[in-house]
Amino acid sequence: MKQNIYDNDIFFKSYTSLRDSGITYNDFVEQPAIKSAISSLNGKNILDLGCGTGEFAKYCVENGATKVVGIDISKNMIEHANKENKHEKIDYICTSIEDLELQNQKFDLIISSLAVHYIADYSAIIEKVTSLLNKNGEYIFSTEHPIVTARKEMNNWIDDKEGNRLHWALDNYQEEGEREQHWYIDGVIKYHRTISTLINTLINNGLVLEKIIEPQSIPTGLEKMPKLINEQRRPSFIVIKAKK
Amino acid sequence: MKQNIYDNDIFFKSYTSLRDSGITYNDFVEQPAIKSAISSLNGKNILDLGCGTGEFAKYCVENGATKVVGIDISKNMIEHANKENKHEKIDYICTSIEDLELQNQKFDLIISSLAVHYIADYSAIIEKVTSLLNKNGEYIFSTEHPIVTARKEMNNWIDDKEGNRLHWALDNYQEEGEREQHWYIDGVIKYHRTISTLINTLINNGLVLEKIIEPQSIPTGLEKMPKLINEQRRPSFIVIKAKK
Repeated sequence: MKQNIYDNDIFFKSYTSLRDSGITYNDFVEQPAIKSAISSLNGKNILDLGCGTGEFAKYCVENGATKVVGIDISKNMIEHANKENKHEKIDYICTSIEDLELQNQKFDLIISSLAVHYIADYSAIIEKVTSLLNKNGEYIFSTEHPIVTARKEMNNWIDDKEGNRLHWALDNYQEEGEREQHWYIDGVIKYHRTISTLINTLINNGLVLEKIIEPQSIPTGLEKMPKLINEQRRPSFIVIKAKK
Repeated sequence: MKQNIYDNDIFFKSYTSLRDSGITYNDFVEQPAIKSAISSLNGKNILDLGCGTGEFAKYCVENGATKVVGIDISKNMIEHANKENKHEKIDYICTSIEDLELQNQKFDLIISSLAVHYIADYSAIIEKVTSLLNKNGEYIFSTEHPIVTARKEMNNWIDDKEGNRLHWALDNYQEEGEREQHWYIDGVIKYHRTISTLINTLINNGLVLEKIIEPQSIPTGLEKMPKLINEQRRPSFIVIKAKK
């Protein structure tokens, strides 16, 4: 059963209202890191796995990409993408990453932004990504950091009585698999994987690791979302770049 | 100033008595992982950075290595190595990794077991290792896991009143640098580095990452040292293998 929280109305409303604010972890931590990992978009044929409302696809064509295919499991997301970020060089397709089939298409760059931790079979994604990359093509993805997904409670800041954050609680690191979380709605499922699984699966599929980023906030983020200072204490995300 | 805790008499006595017991994290967690990462020792010319009393050097020649150079900063260690693990195919040299100079020698395999976290300039070690490796030569090293070295307090199991371990405390992840710890003696200095620094420095020096291991205990370890079950909750070590 593929997870599609973004077609839950309550979730989608809360989520889009958050994203529209422009004051999010994505804006100040994750997206700057993903973008910094891209060597060039110019003339590239790009696949965006979990494209959401298409902001990133639009960013790619505005910065020289020849063609972008954006896929997302959520009808809500693809509808918004086709309204807000329509472009002749972008195709939006409503499908899960697991079910994606693209005959005779190969890409120079495959991106997936915070999608991998929703998917049960990591190995299958990496195999698919590898088969869809051109030689020397690059795969750049972000996911929740294993430090964040490890503990089963998923409620990891430990505070004192005054509400000061004492430290981050880590546990259950080697127990990979489902973690259930409340995020606007109950029962959001994420998959915890260790650093070694994230990296070795790429290498075992013949990809070459190029870079790991454990991003902190850009300066604007620290002004507009002061709690992002906590990204120094433990990273929320990890960005991984590999080459075929 | 290079750190040489192993020539402190109190430290060395406690340390060797621990190692002689054969019931340690090294025996059950770290060494099995290092050894599992080695593809072959046969016919290899090997450098062991931080060789201690030479057990591993001896293991290499007993398993087909042509030649081993073992270096250690501690006179105590090198004396013991020359007594207990002397072999015509092994040269033990008393020098720090930082000061090591080997004219016209290259190696097929360079190992360093739990030495890197004592060294201030990680980038300089990796540069040296790269220059000492033959083409296709491998570097395999273990170090304390960034999860373990991150928090400045370095006292990271949080227990309840009955002494049950609630979780592992993580903090200060992005603040690389010195961590002071009591380990038999006060003032043992270790250096915290993030996962991204550990990995990217290898790649930036032209090495190709081959594998990451975050080891758990082998079964015997769980029998003889029941607390090793906690390695499931957070890994103590990380083993990294890269190729030139």
